[in-house]
Amino acid sequence: MEPRKAMDSLTIMTELVLPNDTNVFGNLMGGRLMYWMDIASALAAQKHCNAPVVTASVDNISFENPIKLGNVVHIEAKVTRAFTSSMEVHMKVWGEDLKKKHKYKSNEAYYTFVALTDENKPTPVPGLIPESEEEQRLFEGALRRRQIRLILGGKMKPDDAKELKALFEN
Amino acid sequence: MEPRKAMDSLTIMTELVLPNDTNVFGNLMGGRLMYWMDIASALAAQKHCNAPVVTASVDNISFENPIKLGNVVHIEAKVTRAFTSSMEVHMKVWGEDLKKKHKYKSNEAYYTFVALTDENKPTPVPGLIPESEEEQRLFEGALRRRQIRLILGGKMKPDDAKELKALFEN
Amino acid sequence: MEPRKAMDSLTIMTELVLPNDTNVFGNLMGGRLMYWMDIASALAAQKHCNAPVVTASVDNISFENPIKLGNVVHIEAKVTRAFTSSMEVHMKVWGEDLKKKHKYKSNEAYYTFVALTDENKPTPVPGLIPESEEEQRLFEGALRRRQIRLILGGKMKPDDAKELKALFEN
Amino acid sequence: MEPRKAMDSLTIMTELVLPNDTNVFGNLMGGRLMYWMDIASALAAQKHCNAPVVTASVDNISFENPIKLGNVVHIEAKVTRAFTSSMEVHMKVWGEDLKKKHKYKSNEAYYTFVALTDENKPTPVPGLIPESEEEQRLFEGALRRRQIRLILGGKMKPDDAKELKALFEN
Amino acid sequence: MEPRKAMDSLTIMTELVLPNDTNVFGNLMGGRLMYWMDIASALAAQKHCNAPVVTASVDNISFENPIKLGNVVHIEAKVTRAFTSSMEVHMKVWGEDLKKKHKYKSNEAYYTFVALTDENKPTPVPGLIPESEEEQRLFEGALRRRQIRLILGGKMKPDDAKELKALFEN
Amino acid sequence: MEPRKAMDSLTIMTELVLPNDTNVFGNLMGGRLMYWMDIASALAAQKHCNAPVVTASVDNISFENPIKLGNVVHIEAKVTRAFTSSMEVHMKVWGEDLKKKHKYKSNEAYYTFVALTDENKPTPVPGLIPESEEEQRLFEGALRRRQIRLILGGKMKPDDAKELKALFEN
Repeated sequence: MEPRKAMDSLTIMTELVLPNDTNVFGNLMGGRLMYWMDIASALAAQKHCNAPVVTASVDNISFENPIKLGNVVHIEAKVTRAFTSSMEVHMKVWGEDLKKKHKYKSNEAYYTFVALTDENKPTPVPGLIPESEEEQRLFEGALRRRQIRLILGGKMKPDDAKELKALFEN
Repeated sequence: MEPRKAMDSLTIMTELVLPNDTNVFGNLMGGRLMYWMDIASALAAQKHCNAPVVTASVDNISFENPIKLGNVVHIEAKVTRAFTSSMEVHMKVWGEDLKKKHKYKSNEAYYTFVALTDENKPTPVPGLIPESEEEQRLFEGALRRRQIRLILGGKMKPDDAKELKALFEN
Repeated sequence: MEPRKAMDSLTIMTELVLPNDTNVFGNLMGGRLMYWMDIASALAAQKHCNAPVVTASVDNISFENPIKLGNVVHIEAKVTRAFTSSMEVHMKVWGEDLKKKHKYKSNEAYYTFVALTDENKPTPVPGLIPESEEEQRLFEGALRRRQIRLILGGKMKPDDAKELKALFEN
Repeated sequence: MEPRKAMDSLTIMTELVLPNDTNVFGNLMGGRLMYWMDIASALAAQKHCNAPVVTASVDNISFENPIKLGNVVHIEAKVTRAFTSSMEVHMKVWGEDLKKKHKYKSNEAYYTFVALTDENKPTPVPGLIPESEEEQRLFEGALRRRQIRLILGGKMKPDDAKELKALFEN
Repeated sequence: MEPRKAMDSLTIMTELVLPNDTNVFGNLMGGRLMYWMDIASALAAQKHCNAPVVTASVDNISFENPIKLGNVVHIEAKVTRAFTSSMEVHMKVWGEDLKKKHKYKSNEAYYTFVALTDENKPTPVPGLIPESEEEQRLFEGALRRRQIRLILGGKMKPDDAKELKALFEN
Repeated sequence: MEPRKAMDSLTIMTELVLPNDTNVFGNLMGGRLMYWMDIASALAAQKHCNAPVVTASVDNISFENPIKLGNVVHIEAKVTRAFTSSMEVHMKVWGEDLKKKHKYKSNEAYYTFVALTDENKPTPVPGLIPESEEEQRLFEGALRRRQIRLILGGKMKPDDAKELKALFEN
């Protein structure tokens, strides 16, 4: 399998915040945003591997600025790294008030997907080639984030997470 | 403000997986589940503080077993600990095939909410009293999870996260 | 087939009233509530019989207190009695304003379901064992309500409805 | 207030059964149908009284023939009688398989609505003039059905329900 | 295949404008209306040909009067003419404010559908018999509108569109 | 008001075709696509004028290739020309089967929007600067399409439509 460029998986999603997407403050509910992010990032992962994918895990997400009713949600998703049959996808999310020409960061997040065969078994995916500086940085951080996921999921001992341990050791 | 028992915030949500909630494998999409979890946990947080709340952050989630079309989703949400104006909510999620009498774990997760005044400013919430052994364990772990959130969100230096550091230090 | 306890079918559903669920007064529309009640009671019936079910009939429902936008809907459903291949399910519905700590009765209702085989034919269901006083009372009333349903559906002559006639005869 | 003809309130609704409206048998769920019926009958009531209305009660509904995915749902709603500030609406519901040119009865039902002022208080509605033979029959039966509703709702003693008692007395 | 009357395809759809159907002005969004119109006209076409149909094209639509939140949408659809395996459907759309007894024209439109076999191939449809004066007028105009569609779709040269040319030639 | 570049209004929307979006052939319904196109093009128009907009008209749309369930819909929308207070938006729509790496044209379309003040009155919009060859071509064609719209809407006499007449005159 030929490795593929990060840029080839770029997926851009644009949604309008409608009344049913909002809480009592007229702001987009976190759960609705996570739903859209799941679809955007799944599409990025599928573009990379050309196989159906399922969500395996979602990293810590912090919601910074609320997105208002009638504003626009922009989601940009791109694969950061591939591991055997899984892919980490990075997303940036902005809100935009088109009337005030004001665009603001809402959050960043990482979702991980597993590629499956039609029989529902994990299947290998192509490697990823990072090109830009940011893609390089995301590619390198992917290992550390994977260790956090494995530790938090009880599948790795903290002691074996070298990259992560380094964070606490000087 | 009188502190309140964990049990008082218990929220039970039951949903049926319909066609539009599923991916090409006929399994519940991760994003739809996160949407339901957001509502269930927001209700648990509101029961605790009797004020409107907004989602502040979501911890790492691992999806273990896919939930099939026509199966039932059970979500149990309970506040684990309160911090000034925020509350951590723990959820357990199961799928259930009523025909086969088969109930299976899907995932566990932590969502954090901030209580707001009607003017959209953070407002203090009552403390939490854990009672059962599990509630005690979740209450204690809440500090460590909060440090992870703060470090991952760039709001705390790894060096200041005592409880977390301890994980890597023997 | 082993008879089963009423309690084993207990299904608890919690929903949040969103803008699209409401009428011009900002109150939950009756039709949306009947939709949720249909799912909650179908799940209770399926828990009892472990077979797919379809809605056969719905008894008279009175809507007492309107449930407001942003309030919570609580539905508790439990099988009251089983007849050959059908089951009557009783539901209690409350609204709750979490901010004002105010929980109020919305309505009670009875939905009846028929259990089906995969070939879409009625199939026998286990008997029901009522335990609490309320379950006993609901179990006994089920006969009378069944007679009303049969008379109203034109499948029984008023004269043959002994339990019901008694209501009018002293 | 000028009384109005039954025919003036006629409301015809046509819906297509989509995947998310169906149960595991690919048939329209009862709850979804009751949701559409609520909207159709509310519109008929509003046509009669030209005021906003809320659902007060729903009579016993029996579901006869399942309506399949891709089939059409026809709902015809018409006010049968007006009482001070409430109106009873009668509906006939059919399914239709357009490919097989097959139209089949699904069910009939009665929903009752209360007209409200903008301040949410009950307000008088015009009387109803039945014209056709069927409208006459529905107009007369409305009294008896109202007694059943009042008895079942605990607001009338069986002994005071003359029209209803007559059913059991010869 | 026996030709069929225009009137036999009449389809009446009634929808209520809910919060999620509206833009920031509280008016029905054009896209939501086009969605309902697509379903209403597809049903009219299916009534005519008794085969599944797919949308082939939509003619120029002008939106005249906005329809408000809480108002009713009325759509009347009727086949105007049949061509080999396609049918043109004409729709009239009104909004109605039931409280003010005010009904207003929203727009008129033409959607064209192709009838398909179960194998997804175009299949012949019955001819159409126009009866009323309006049906006659719509039947005749259908040829000219078809030429516009073919020219705009690049499938006919302007020079071959006799009926259309005549519009510009005196 | 400073005129703005066509490119500044570019809006990219990506949607996944879910079960409820499809007809009996498992293909995206035309009406659902027109709904998404309405939102995508409204956002492009709002980016251009930074004011709320409403759909004024939709040009003839031909649906070429059906988009399958589970496939992706790509919509690219860009303003082509501005007229006093209205803007024409051009869209290209593709379907994509990510598994087969197959991307196919679905259709092209023009939607026209009017910019409004908060009081719901038309308000002037900035002029448009076309740059690329395609933008130039779309900019020029906009006049002719506007004439077709005005003639079809009965607001212009065919004789006054010079650009359009030229099509039929040699």
